[in-house]
Amino acid sequence: MTTGGATRTVVRLSDGRELIYFDDEPGRDRAEPDRRGLAPVARPPSQLRHDPLTDEWVVIAAHRQGRTHLPAAADCPLCPSRDGHLTEIPADYDVAVFENRFPALGLPEQGRCEVVCFTADHDASFSTLTPRRVGTVLAAWTDRTAALGRSPAVASVFVFENRGEEIGVTLGHPHGQIYAYPFVPPSLATMTRVARRRGRCLHCEAVAAETAAGTRLVASTDSWAAFVPYAARWPFEVSIHPRRHVPDLPALDERERAEFPELYLDVLRRFDRVLGVRMPYIAAWEQAPVRAGRRWAHLRLRVFSNRRARDKLKYLAGSESAMGVYINDIEPERAAALLRAAA
Amino acid sequence: MTTGGATRTVVRLSDGRELIYFDDEPGRDRAEPDRRGLAPVARPPSQLRHDPLTDEWVVIAAHRQGRTHLPAAADCPLCPSRDGHLTEIPADYDVAVFENRFPALGLPEQGRCEVVCFTADHDASFSTLTPRRVGTVLAAWTDRTAALGRSPAVASVFVFENRGEEIGVTLGHPHGQIYAYPFVPPSLATMTRVARRRGRCLHCEAVAAETAAGTRLVASTDSWAAFVPYAARWPFEVSIHPRRHVPDLPALDERERAEFPELYLDVLRRFDRVLGVRMPYIAAWEQAPVRAGRRWAHLRLRVFSNRRARDKLKYLAGSESAMGVYINDIEPERAAALLRAAA
Repeated sequence: MTTGGATRTVVRLSDGRELIYFDDEPGRDRAEPDRRGLAPVARPPSQLRHDPLTDEWVVIAAHRQGRTHLPAAADCPLCPSRDGHLTEIPADYDVAVFENRFPALGLPEQGRCEVVCFTADHDASFSTLTPRRVGTVLAAWTDRTAALGRSPAVASVFVFENRGEEIGVTLGHPHGQIYAYPFVPPSLATMTRVARRRGRCLHCEAVAAETAAGTRLVASTDSWAAFVPYAARWPFEVSIHPRRHVPDLPALDERERAEFPELYLDVLRRFDRVLGVRMPYIAAWEQAPVRAGRRWAHLRLRVFSNRRARDKLKYLAGSESAMGVYINDIEPERAAALLRAAA
Repeated sequence: MTTGGATRTVVRLSDGRELIYFDDEPGRDRAEPDRRGLAPVARPPSQLRHDPLTDEWVVIAAHRQGRTHLPAAADCPLCPSRDGHLTEIPADYDVAVFENRFPALGLPEQGRCEVVCFTADHDASFSTLTPRRVGTVLAAWTDRTAALGRSPAVASVFVFENRGEEIGVTLGHPHGQIYAYPFVPPSLATMTRVARRRGRCLHCEAVAAETAAGTRLVASTDSWAAFVPYAARWPFEVSIHPRRHVPDLPALDERERAEFPELYLDVLRRFDRVLGVRMPYIAAWEQAPVRAGRRWAHLRLRVFSNRRARDKLKYLAGSESAMGVYINDIEPERAAALLRAAA
């Protein structure tokens, strides 16, 4: 099957989990089996607990305490399998997506967690992928958003990448994750509530205003705008929006798909140049919930770093963690100017 | 002036900022002047920026990038002044509160930031204070909540302590902070909205239920209950509530004030024993907003740590930082049992 230019092949790992290859080009043989003979994981189920004080859900995932933690490169579970080192992925690959063996959301009625490997090259990073490969990753994200959203248990599909040990990444191989939540996350619920109350899309307004002003703009194409938000919460934060009022990844059109890779690579390279050090970052796709309030949502990719200087990190301390009030030490216009200069 | 058993003396630092001594016993001479001859700080003002997407405020405090960062103990600005080392506090002290020289909220109409020094002993920590001293700290917190709340610019007073470099503390001397926000923080706004919708105090219900069940209870007195919340967001998190429906610190009665110190010290000591390492933590008082929605608020002190194992920290990665969905690797009942055993 071909999805947005990528070729998709579904196989099963030896313990029954799904593995999906997305190839840059058609014609690759994906018959290589998982030779590990894994028993299905007897997972202590995750628990979803409702906090009555905030009307929010918390995931209790006690079994994850034992998950793989910063293995040496030779033991990487995300590299392609080779003689003497069998991994989660039986063969060489372009992009591979599989169900997490240590999922935060572990049962069908609780949603699902997937791992997205961007490249077989352990030492690469997203910013060193080719535009062609970013197109394949985008096709994988799109396919998974649509597929997971078809499950009646799923209310919201969250596609993201955590990069860097400074933000808690436990595997160095370039990869992202997908959480299919069985509820609408608080930040999406808040944005939907605010937009509904205002009766208009505030993202559309922000895109138009930032494009006109230009002071916080970092990069743009005909169909995308990337800017530091006026009220940025993080020292380096870029919000990448399709200009069109698009709810989620499956709704992107061909031009938007074609223009995204170069734009995103440009933003990520600026992140790595702006302080002259490899930046930790979180890249988080905000997508419309699967069913409720879709018309009020506007797709965006938020990329933000907790590094505020070469030798200093931003911590979420009392004001942020307990009160939800962010204190940002870098003026957004200055962050934008620094990112624009980091060409 | 005497406040809840503590003696209060207001002086001015040489740059005009207020310094308030709270003494365990009356009769101390507090006339020692600040001999530094500081010029008033020409502060680039902080900016409050409204995020239209979430209807939340963000503080842009660019001038704080240059703030004091982990000075050596000999250069500590929170130790009492001595010959050859003049600090923020001219004399020996019990508890001292002063306006922050590098405030996140810098102008009168933006609120105010204060520093609360718990002891003159640089190497102490809150958990090693005497109960008498904790009573003095409580009196200082109470006084400041009432005083700051009288300003028409202030909507909410947030009293907290960040402890440990692992959560970004930049001064090792035992101290906390007070932020007087000119708006109601998102987490308080959320809890008020939920309680109002439900038409009852969900904290009162939680205190009664946790006391009856006991499985998550950590410590208690006649007037206070300390428990791990049912939907705890952090690996080690304890919620300390007055049993009575009390909106804020000034509303505590004499019995509650008398019982708090031993209870809180007990909880903090359990934190430090539970993993056998000095725990980083955030201790955050959730108080009713100064004016709006007070009847729906119930005072509580949330104490939580980002340490999930002796050698592992909990990071706020994509799910928490971007979606507001917390994933907790330790079951709350297990955390409570571990804390109860850490006597």
